[in-house]
Amino acid sequence: MWPFNHVPRAQLSRRYGFELSERWLEHVQRSSVRVSSCSGSFVSAHGLTLTNQHCALDCLSRLSSHQHDLLEQGFYARTAAAEPVCPGYAILGLEQISDVTARIRHATAGRAGQAFEQALEGETARIEAECSQGNSGPRASCEVVGLHHGGLYELYRYRRYDDVRLVFAPEKEIAQFGGDPDNFNFPRFDLDVTFLRAYEQGRPALTPEHLTWSRSALAPNELTFISGTPGSTERQRTSAELAFLRDHALVEELTQLAGYRGFLTEYGERGREARRWSTPDLYRVENTFKELYGAREALLEPSFFQRLVAREQELRQRVDADPAFCREYGGAWEAIEEALRRSAPFARDWLWIEGPPGFRPPWAKTSLFFWARSLVRAGAERLRDNAERLPEYGESRLPALERRLLAPQPLDREFEIAKLAFGLSALREALGADHPFVRKVLGRAAPAELARELVQGSALERVAERTRLWRGGQAAVLESRDRMIQLALAIDSEGRALRARHSAELDSVLAKHGERVARARFAVYGMQAAPDATSSPRLSFGTIRGWREPRTGQLVPAFTTLGGVFQRATGRAPYALPRSWLRQRAQLALDTPFNFATDDDVVGGNSGSPVLNRHGELVGLLFDGNLHSLGGAYGFDIALNRAVAVDARAIRHALEVIYGARRLTRELAGGSP
Amino acid sequence: MWPFNHVPRAQLSRRYGFELSERWLEHVQRSSVRVSSCSGSFVSAHGLTLTNQHCALDCLSRLSSHQHDLLEQGFYARTAAAEPVCPGYAILGLEQISDVTARIRHATAGRAGQAFEQALEGETARIEAECSQGNSGPRASCEVVGLHHGGLYELYRYRRYDDVRLVFAPEKEIAQFGGDPDNFNFPRFDLDVTFLRAYEQGRPALTPEHLTWSRSALAPNELTFISGTPGSTERQRTSAELAFLRDHALVEELTQLAGYRGFLTEYGERGREARRWSTPDLYRVENTFKELYGAREALLEPSFFQRLVAREQELRQRVDADPAFCREYGGAWEAIEEALRRSAPFARDWLWIEGPPGFRPPWAKTSLFFWARSLVRAGAERLRDNAERLPEYGESRLPALERRLLAPQPLDREFEIAKLAFGLSALREALGADHPFVRKVLGRAAPAELARELVQGSALERVAERTRLWRGGQAAVLESRDRMIQLALAIDSEGRALRARHSAELDSVLAKHGERVARARFAVYGMQAAPDATSSPRLSFGTIRGWREPRTGQLVPAFTTLGGVFQRATGRAPYALPRSWLRQRAQLALDTPFNFATDDDVVGGNSGSPVLNRHGELVGLLFDGNLHSLGGAYGFDIALNRAVAVDARAIRHALEVIYGARRLTRELAGGSP
Repeated sequence: MWPFNHVPRAQLSRRYGFELSERWLEHVQRSSVRVSSCSGSFVSAHGLTLTNQHCALDCLSRLSSHQHDLLEQGFYARTAAAEPVCPGYAILGLEQISDVTARIRHATAGRAGQAFEQALEGETARIEAECSQGNSGPRASCEVVGLHHGGLYELYRYRRYDDVRLVFAPEKEIAQFGGDPDNFNFPRFDLDVTFLRAYEQGRPALTPEHLTWSRSALAPNELTFISGTPGSTERQRTSAELAFLRDHALVEELTQLAGYRGFLTEYGERGREARRWSTPDLYRVENTFKELYGAREALLEPSFFQRLVAREQELRQRVDADPAFCREYGGAWEAIEEALRRSAPFARDWLWIEGPPGFRPPWAKTSLFFWARSLVRAGAERLRDNAERLPEYGESRLPALERRLLAPQPLDREFEIAKLAFGLSALREALGADHPFVRKVLGRAAPAELARELVQGSALERVAERTRLWRGGQAAVLESRDRMIQLALAIDSEGRALRARHSAELDSVLAKHGERVARARFAVYGMQAAPDATSSPRLSFGTIRGWREPRTGQLVPAFTTLGGVFQRATGRAPYALPRSWLRQRAQLALDTPFNFATDDDVVGGNSGSPVLNRHGELVGLLFDGNLHSLGGAYGFDIALNRAVAVDARAIRHALEVIYGARRLTRELAGGSP
Repeated sequence: MWPFNHVPRAQLSRRYGFELSERWLEHVQRSSVRVSSCSGSFVSAHGLTLTNQHCALDCLSRLSSHQHDLLEQGFYARTAAAEPVCPGYAILGLEQISDVTARIRHATAGRAGQAFEQALEGETARIEAECSQGNSGPRASCEVVGLHHGGLYELYRYRRYDDVRLVFAPEKEIAQFGGDPDNFNFPRFDLDVTFLRAYEQGRPALTPEHLTWSRSALAPNELTFISGTPGSTERQRTSAELAFLRDHALVEELTQLAGYRGFLTEYGERGREARRWSTPDLYRVENTFKELYGAREALLEPSFFQRLVAREQELRQRVDADPAFCREYGGAWEAIEEALRRSAPFARDWLWIEGPPGFRPPWAKTSLFFWARSLVRAGAERLRDNAERLPEYGESRLPALERRLLAPQPLDREFEIAKLAFGLSALREALGADHPFVRKVLGRAAPAELARELVQGSALERVAERTRLWRGGQAAVLESRDRMIQLALAIDSEGRALRARHSAELDSVLAKHGERVARARFAVYGMQAAPDATSSPRLSFGTIRGWREPRTGQLVPAFTTLGGVFQRATGRAPYALPRSWLRQRAQLALDTPFNFATDDDVVGGNSGSPVLNRHGELVGLLFDGNLHSLGGAYGFDIALNRAVAVDARAIRHALEVIYGARRLTRELAGGSP
């Protein structure tokens, strides 16, 4: 998972005989995009964007109604005018990377603890603000990316498309064939495909750099590239941090997710509407659960963990053996271990009262609370100097927050109430009924009762009311009688205090000493490994291949075919095929490759990434990994970890034969939309 | 937690100046009983039995109807004739203990692996059969108890009362005031009390040995005894076993329970009936979840685990240092660790397809499946020699199984369907959609669809049908067209094969080498510690006292008062008081002690145990422990672990003032029912 400006050309040449050219790299970089928290690519000169159906779930769900469920029925805009806006969606294309390490080092020099953290946040905010102001106005999005845990800081400038529309999505039954049971498995048979379109000023965006469809056949052992924005990995973490994750954090999160998942599953039984509203949440929860479960399994594997520990011990010995290294990097591992140990008394309060920056605490997974807290905090933060704000309210982030806050978003009050009631019960359980915060929130009310009162007493679902409070700032917020705003106000100081403590006593220690560990690794080994994933654009490479399953000894082949899906279908969810597929079965070339596996290194966030051949042509669409790949959060094992993609030939064939999407196939062949 | 025949008199005398007499011990032993999986005590000469309301949940639920919800409304039989039968309930009073170690040693001598396990099971079954046949007929229940993990085997003979009726239960709101949030907490304010009655031949049983109510006040630091049947502890387990529990088994179980709990919580929202049916399951799941969570927390505490490891290392050094010990006990720890490691490939199949002996696999938590599997297996097992049967179908266990199988038990088909659908999904997730067992069970059906078909296609809810299949034996079972029976038949061989493997490769190794570890401990240290709990009657002793909470430094006092419950009440579940309490508030002596804490050593299964003073008089009723006490599964920490009980004075006062239960209070004072 290499940053586009650090791709190891020598390795590519030596291992695969591939000579990487600047032009190839630029073409792929400019054709690749970020789509919400997924990846994607431009596939026409008119902003047509290919990504996964599962990356468009929010859009499909928001555009659905009782009569027209786009998840179930799929969608195809037969004319350009029929392409509806995906509320809140944005597409980002990377334009430039520049090194800002020196600026950050200068701003943080000689600082430790909270002062270090503040200096880092402050300088990051300044750099990002200068970048977005200095460039093409509202269409530039800027982000400082810390690579190698602060070993290197780079500024990524994106071109931003805020008007994103829906062009095509297949029925959920084929997009997610096999559902949760087949998630992170292979063999697979999924058409997990969606086409969106980037618009500018009401017209399809001009995207001269875009991918073309490969015309050559794809075969095992062929070199492939995957270009996307992998979310995050933890491959540089110390063994103390990983042990903490394995024994504490991941287990807490897994049990909490399991409970929420049980709730959502049964909530869907309330009726068809309830199922429609809860499905996107359930999808996310099931996916996250499996990811974390698989990651923990990898950490529990003694050989895997021992390899990590051995690698760390070797580095520490090298550091200890050199007096200069020792002065510079010594004590970093101990400081991290000590900070983790000391965080136990406030870690749970922090998680449940404040939650990680940019996230809500686990009990408050409702849209209403997100709006309320954002309005309350933005009101206060906007009165401060940019450098002193909480980073997510920094000047450069405000436009995106405003868009997210003010985008129309339909809401189901019953679902909001049920989620909040479940969450408030979980809060009381996690902190205990006698905890002052729990007493403050619940008062004498029962969770379900308070949840109903808060949701019924809030008008934040109206865009006009959110707009009024956003524009009115702190004064309007303080005067509001909206119950959800009042709750967010009442608990704001507790959250801020815990965040400050967590930042000072844990985050800043991990950041500071994590950077020292990463720099020690640089000092000892140089740039031998790719930096951890940070949701920034990366390029992976590998070959098409299956694997041998270690426990059973079974060989899993690299390809499946369209014919296989008809064999696997049972007629019942999640193994039911849509009517369109059953009807057109006889017209399909059943030996067309459907899904395939590669040994490229990918993680969550890569969903929707284009898979390319050595000519830079599109040969597939990444949508998943196998079970082993979930250990990829902590280390990549080329023998077992596999990326899973839809074959580009299957996409074209289905568009033509099943969906008769001629407007789309013409455009993919170079025509106009 | 000392067996009644191994109470350390010297320790009692030295530490508390208490001289234990034979008569005292016999009186307490004969007044104490086992009530389903709880404890209890006779409190009148006419079979009146005191236990917890939470131990009578099944009874209260089965006797409830849409109009009369005994959980919500409580129950009081104003006349003897109005005492309804608790279906399936039995009360067991311990009559005699005898040592059978020599017989077991003789039968297992020189055997290992599966042969050892079979010999142990066979001899156990023979001893139990001889005991129940040789004694007072159907009223004797016999059980071989392995103490110190097989260091000692004793035969426990019980007198059994199969006709158990309900006399009194308070409303759930006060019995479980504080509900799940306050569970395993202190201070507490619960009247977790139920009176049952043992009947013989249609009349109240004669129980001349019974407890009398103390007339003296109870004060901090006073010596108390708790007599009951603690379920199980793991205090002799090797560090490898505990690490396996901490890192694997407990986490698997916690996530699975969390999901089931989320499902049950939301299932209750379907309506009032749905809530009534799901409440007992939810109660059990919440309780088990907290127990396992607390137990895991204790194992994660480094100082706690390190103490266990240090103790083990000392023992192993003593063994290694002595050639005779080394020959006799050497290699036991290594063999256990190796067997655990080798169990990984089949452990999950075993759990999900077969489940631990006597339990159902996690997906099959329905009554219908329990009946079906019991009928299928009993049909086959009864054709075999007693010594070759699966132990739960041994001759001596059949009467109890028959009673449980043929007792009337109302059933809600919708709840059975929902539980089974949830369970079948969980099965598919745990083993994977391509697992042959999953394919065999589900075929082409979706979990919800199959669940409905199985439940609708079964007539096992009718006692007559179960009776017919029980009497008809294997022939009737094989001919049955009942869908649930057919399922149980279809998957029987897979379950048996896995059980045999698990038994041969893991259970028998743990039993065999666990016994060697326990015997090594005996050889080195003698009888210094009480044996692990085994659901057999035990006596604990300690003093009334609060504790200092380590994290906050707060001192928790030993007593709460009736007045406290009115302060804590919010009017909302689970902090709402029943109308009876609100109405009679002015008549209550609010300074009456309500609940109290002691440092007696108790664990789950002790619920309903009488708390006694040095005169052997009843001073309280155990119903819970504090959060720290959940680590008691692996070790007892007298500084922090606390038992939690209802004060006997509060019980009497509430019966008189709130419930006007004069028939009951007269009987408690020595009158007739």
